Amino acid sequence: MKKLINAPGNYVDEMLDGLVAAHPYLARAGEEGRVIRRASAPRRGKVGIVSGGGSGHLPLFTGYVAEGMLDACAIGNVFEGPTVGSCVEAIQAADGGAGVLRLYGNYGGDRMNFDMAGEIAEADGIESTTVLGIDDVASAAPEEGAKRRGVAGILYAYKAAGAMADRGASLAEVTATAADAVARTRTIGVALSPCLIPGSGAPSFTLGENEIEMGMGIHGEPGIWRAPLRPADEVADEMLDRLTADAPLSGARQVSVLVNSLGATPLEELYILYRRIAQRLAADGLEVVMPLVGHYATSMEMAGVSVSLCVVDGAFMELLAAPTSCPFWRGAA
Amino acid sequence: MKKLINAPGNYVDEMLDGLVAAHPYLARAGEEGRVIRRASAPRRGKVGIVSGGGSGHLPLFTGYVAEGMLDACAIGNVFEGPTVGSCVEAIQAADGGAGVLRLYGNYGGDRMNFDMAGEIAEADGIESTTVLGIDDVASAAPEEGAKRRGVAGILYAYKAAGAMADRGASLAEVTATAADAVARTRTIGVALSPCLIPGSGAPSFTLGENEIEMGMGIHGEPGIWRAPLRPADEVADEMLDRLTADAPLSGARQVSVLVNSLGATPLEELYILYRRIAQRLAADGLEVVMPLVGHYATSMEMAGVSVSLCVVDGAFMELLAAPTSCPFWRGAA
Repeated sequence: MKKLINAPGNYVDEMLDGLVAAHPYLARAGEEGRVIRRASAPRRGKVGIVSGGGSGHLPLFTGYVAEGMLDACAIGNVFEGPTVGSCVEAIQAADGGAGVLRLYGNYGGDRMNFDMAGEIAEADGIESTTVLGIDDVASAAPEEGAKRRGVAGILYAYKAAGAMADRGASLAEVTATAADAVARTRTIGVALSPCLIPGSGAPSFTLGENEIEMGMGIHGEPGIWRAPLRPADEVADEMLDRLTADAPLSGARQVSVLVNSLGATPLEELYILYRRIAQRLAADGLEVVMPLVGHYATSMEMAGVSVSLCVVDGAFMELLAAPTSCPFWRGAA
Repeated sequence: MKKLINAPGNYVDEMLDGLVAAHPYLARAGEEGRVIRRASAPRRGKVGIVSGGGSGHLPLFTGYVAEGMLDACAIGNVFEGPTVGSCVEAIQAADGGAGVLRLYGNYGGDRMNFDMAGEIAEADGIESTTVLGIDDVASAAPEEGAKRRGVAGILYAYKAAGAMADRGASLAEVTATAADAVARTRTIGVALSPCLIPGSGAPSFTLGENEIEMGMGIHGEPGIWRAPLRPADEVADEMLDRLTADAPLSGARQVSVLVNSLGATPLEELYILYRRIAQRLAADGLEVVMPLVGHYATSMEMAGVSVSLCVVDGAFMELLAAPTSCPFWRGAA
């Protein structure tokens, strides 16, 4: 595994410099430069939405700072959560006077720092709420759903809450929309090969020459099983079975599906998987609306995919279909 | 290297099925199903634009069939050109009665088949012209520019010619715009690791554990040198030096830059490279407009990047900035 980088210690800062250079509607902010915010000032009266987490998951998290989605992100080193200071600065950057939603994945360190940041912001007069992404069905049993990790499915919450905030909804309403999006969404991943943390000599985990791991997390957290590589359709079937067994599908007629590359897995393979998933869902009487196929939440050059299922109805679909300037959101209604 | 696929012989067809399932504005067509066209009938009086080539390069070629870009693509097996029959069918699918531009990369087999298809289409009363992508500076010396291969830079010709066709321009005008875009554009690639052709037991080429190859083509065609991995900035500097030495920069004030992942190389590394390239261009007094950073033309899971430079002026920029519905074109002015 080779990385086209400079000094590993500069990896995150150089990456963020490139990101804002390529996307002038973004700006770096914060004492450590670890906040990505919209370059324009927050719209007065609009609820702000912040997210954040470790680096190494582009376009997550910073790529979703855009009109119609997030207002700011606090970003840490590779696979390490942002500091409390950066979290506070992200909340401040997102503050338009109507409160700020903290919307991020359920990881212990991130929670601690974002919670502390929320208290500091409150002392500054900025009201804020929290919704956690908990979409990874492989990370805890259904009855312990609140313990699940957040992975690619948080995208649906970004999009829906972002659209709600743009409509001028209150903090309570935007928070409820994000929580609703999380409740509608389930994700599972499968890993084919690891990634390399810059500066570390060894891969993030090891898999045998012909081995895959079902349910592995995006930082290499242990999954459900390891076994030899299987045909794509078998893998898709198992992933879909695990998602449909868990998702709130009772009475559902429409779902959105996100087939996400964890990094190295190419679009060709994503479409092969999507084909099977769409066939299966159609056979189950479910209509797929706004399929998302591509690189949405990665672990650098890790090979593998995640599949997310989001149960959609008319009102929720309007939020997904609302306009956004985000170049990484490629949904079409 | 592991691939999440089914039977290798079904790879291309299953991929195309997934593509059109995920993007309902696309349709498969042709006797062998190896044409991707817009689902809607061609606009009467609009010049059609077709492209094509081997599979394995998504979103190239088929991903650029969209309003404001291509009308149809003929697609072959992995790294193999499309058949004459598919090329004819693509031309027919793109025909709106105002002629069709055949716009594709300069590869021997593709030329032979698209030329023959052009003759067959002419006998059917469809006028067509040819413009070849020849942007890869590593593939032949400047004085033999017409022998160069076409790689990611053909995207600029797709975009500019597509916008021109949408304006209602004539076949001669659309052809001239595509030729102008090709003349403005230079690309060079660097490979870090190979890909695996489905069904083949061995990687497409081999590189040492810590070795990279400057100038390698997207099918593993030999490049300029092989040497141990270097810091990203050194690699970026050499790529940019080779591009600026070759590009028509005399009197230029604006350039667009495409930093393209060949597959496995993650967005993080693309932004690190883009940062350096933008800094260097700014120091040279050149303004970067509409930077493109992402997966635009790949070789499945090959690791590496290509950098393209396109010299822009006001009129050309209007074409790049014209609207397109293509989800894979992420340019913003």
